[in-house]
Amino acid sequence: MTLSWSSSGLDVHLGWQPETGRTGLAAAIRAAIRDGRWQAGAAVPSTRALAQDLGVARGTVTRVYADLAAEGYLRTAQGAPTRVATAGALPQSPPRPAAREVAPRWDLRPGRPDLSAFPGQAWLASTRKVLQRVPATNLGYASELGAPELRDTLAVYLARSRGVVADPARIVVCNGYSHALTLLTRVLHGKGVDEVAFENPSLRMYRDLVAANGPRVVGAEVDDDGIDMSALDSPAVVVTAAHQYPMGVTLAPHRRAALTRWAGDSGAIVLEDDYDGEFRFDNQQVGALQALAPERVVYAGTVSKTLAPALRLGWLVLPRSLVEPMRAAIVDSGSRPPVLNQLTLAELIDSGGYDRHVRRSRTEYRSRRDRLLAALPGVVTPRGISAGLHLTLMLPDGGPTETEVLAACRRRAIGLEGLRSYWQDEGRPGGVIVGYGAAAKHAFAGATQAFIEALWEVTP
Amino acid sequence: MTLSWSSSGLDVHLGWQPETGRTGLAAAIRAAIRDGRWQAGAAVPSTRALAQDLGVARGTVTRVYADLAAEGYLRTAQGAPTRVATAGALPQSPPRPAAREVAPRWDLRPGRPDLSAFPGQAWLASTRKVLQRVPATNLGYASELGAPELRDTLAVYLARSRGVVADPARIVVCNGYSHALTLLTRVLHGKGVDEVAFENPSLRMYRDLVAANGPRVVGAEVDDDGIDMSALDSPAVVVTAAHQYPMGVTLAPHRRAALTRWAGDSGAIVLEDDYDGEFRFDNQQVGALQALAPERVVYAGTVSKTLAPALRLGWLVLPRSLVEPMRAAIVDSGSRPPVLNQLTLAELIDSGGYDRHVRRSRTEYRSRRDRLLAALPGVVTPRGISAGLHLTLMLPDGGPTETEVLAACRRRAIGLEGLRSYWQDEGRPGGVIVGYGAAAKHAFAGATQAFIEALWEVTP
Repeated sequence: MTLSWSSSGLDVHLGWQPETGRTGLAAAIRAAIRDGRWQAGAAVPSTRALAQDLGVARGTVTRVYADLAAEGYLRTAQGAPTRVATAGALPQSPPRPAAREVAPRWDLRPGRPDLSAFPGQAWLASTRKVLQRVPATNLGYASELGAPELRDTLAVYLARSRGVVADPARIVVCNGYSHALTLLTRVLHGKGVDEVAFENPSLRMYRDLVAANGPRVVGAEVDDDGIDMSALDSPAVVVTAAHQYPMGVTLAPHRRAALTRWAGDSGAIVLEDDYDGEFRFDNQQVGALQALAPERVVYAGTVSKTLAPALRLGWLVLPRSLVEPMRAAIVDSGSRPPVLNQLTLAELIDSGGYDRHVRRSRTEYRSRRDRLLAALPGVVTPRGISAGLHLTLMLPDGGPTETEVLAACRRRAIGLEGLRSYWQDEGRPGGVIVGYGAAAKHAFAGATQAFIEALWEVTP
Repeated sequence: MTLSWSSSGLDVHLGWQPETGRTGLAAAIRAAIRDGRWQAGAAVPSTRALAQDLGVARGTVTRVYADLAAEGYLRTAQGAPTRVATAGALPQSPPRPAAREVAPRWDLRPGRPDLSAFPGQAWLASTRKVLQRVPATNLGYASELGAPELRDTLAVYLARSRGVVADPARIVVCNGYSHALTLLTRVLHGKGVDEVAFENPSLRMYRDLVAANGPRVVGAEVDDDGIDMSALDSPAVVVTAAHQYPMGVTLAPHRRAALTRWAGDSGAIVLEDDYDGEFRFDNQQVGALQALAPERVVYAGTVSKTLAPALRLGWLVLPRSLVEPMRAAIVDSGSRPPVLNQLTLAELIDSGGYDRHVRRSRTEYRSRRDRLLAALPGVVTPRGISAGLHLTLMLPDGGPTETEVLAACRRRAIGLEGLRSYWQDEGRPGGVIVGYGAAAKHAFAGATQAFIEALWEVTP
């Protein structure tokens, strides 16, 4: 019902629906005040007049006016007419709606699993079990380091699957790897760490995150044996030991020994970002570096590659000396992962559903890698093929440039990444990082085909 | 199978189960190295000898040794025996397991809803719908300000239920109120806000959180009309306008007008912590203060009181000028609430399930409040009875002290809070804060009874 009248000096349009009752009437008047139809300082219709016009009891209008006076919209005074009181600065026009991320037509973005394969039934079943079995009081405020149930489960899982020296007391659960990296950076910065070394190349987003939280960032070269620590003199270093991101090499045994020895001698902290350790395709199992020096190496893992980034769950396995500082940093960050998600993941791992999904995914990704490798033209050199969700393709000196390949992909609505942002300096070789995880199963062949066409188009 | 031999100079005990295969054997050897049974530098059994003793193919042992060499546990060299390579500092004894929070026998802790009434079926049904309906790509990395679907839904819900001036573009979703408060503090601190005023009394945890993130904290008196801003000269103030926590008063209309006028004149930011705005028991609906001055007041809400803290979801409705700084702060914090939970909440609100649960809870809590009030002896003066999940009981000058009441409650395993930590200075009146939300339905009568007995015990 839209009413319009000016019996009281106010021209009133109230978009009020009678079935919304008193609450709806109050909302309609608030809206009228906000957008200036009921102007600041003007007398409002008498309760009698408005009740009559609306066809409601006078008491209804009286109570709505009282409510709005309590909220500060109206001003009442003994023996004087009720007036519009507000004079706040109110929004004049609604802003544009929030932008939604749109997946590219052909999704070859690295670092993403196939979300269409998310084990929704298993996740739901685990959530149901948690809600049935767990005492309701466990749905309260989370303990700082994470739900004890998940920390117990992760200790067993990480020891079994990745050879991590993990006991629950040194595990902390975070809102994904980014949160873990941020908190660890703050802890280390608080202990005087003013510089963090990253592999060169490495993911820029994480370097930026560290720099935003205190320390400066420097680079360390990566060769076929992984990070070269001969020039390393930072008090902290981040490594992707099992499968260097993005170059894909595995840290060689002699380097592993040297890195942990260096950390022990210099008192440095090594952060082992084990982002895709579950997806190893050859027989060369590579256990966690952390196990060689659990008091110098922080191990980091996540479900973002195995299940979905939408769950925002990651963890650190910490040297003992960092557990209490990390607890304080978590409290100061005001942020903890939801207990419900933590308990659901623990249940999923305990039930075997997590391992089943990882095994299924590993088989699928290996098959995609093989198909992609078979389709690649000889002009590109694939790197890092033994694990993970991506290939890095190096481009030849005389061949297409990174810019040309990216432009050809953009024209075909193919999403992938160039190597440039991964380097910390200029003049490095060009390349593209092709993720074979992200596409849905039915779309992978088409994405591969489109990418190969893009490559041919720009190959001289 | 536990084996023990010393044929190679190593006394070997391997707790290896044959059915665990190659992976299990590798794990058993890692464990032996880690706890010193296979000592650093010692030659390991030959592949032939170990294979024979274990009753496995020699190739199995060869591959396990190769794996462990790749991981850095073993050291291999052409023509020389394979040796144990590690010399890292390994944990000697497992630390104590993580402490689990234990709910008190009689749970009268304030600020907590009845978690046994968590609408598990509705939450599951909403999760199922989300997993069925939402495009899989939406389970990827979250947009910084929150899932667009939830921000759209919250804009409508908050305008409808709380009279908030909310459009999606000024809403940001956080990991609960603590995360929101932390990020806002950092944003304001970055803009030069070096002092934040809190109501006195107020929850210490939030004051500590603000202080940990930069600004110093000062107090502002609370009287029967809510916060007294006559002495206020901080550039930011946190208020619980609808239902002061813990005193329970409602910010009076003249104070609402004065507070927003003051903020407009001085350029200050007001944070409206609407922690229990959904639970109003009288007819005096109190809409959000924010609507009076949306460019000066930040509105904060959460599901921690309506659903459960375990979901870690809260939101801010921001002045336009703070949206982009907040986006940057979220990125730097590395932490965002899981998209899956955000989409599930949006679905629960859109389906009407959220409102149904809030209405049911409101009826139940009102009934509990009435029963508690009826049972209270005259010696205590209840405050803040018109809304929320708690009563604050003021203690008389000659009567039992706060310390005495808390001790009597502790003896009966009753969980509640004293007023002392809420004050920012000494010499304030004593009291206890009784939460009638936390107990399960069947336990509330017993908790009330126990509390009344505790009160009588210490009343002179």
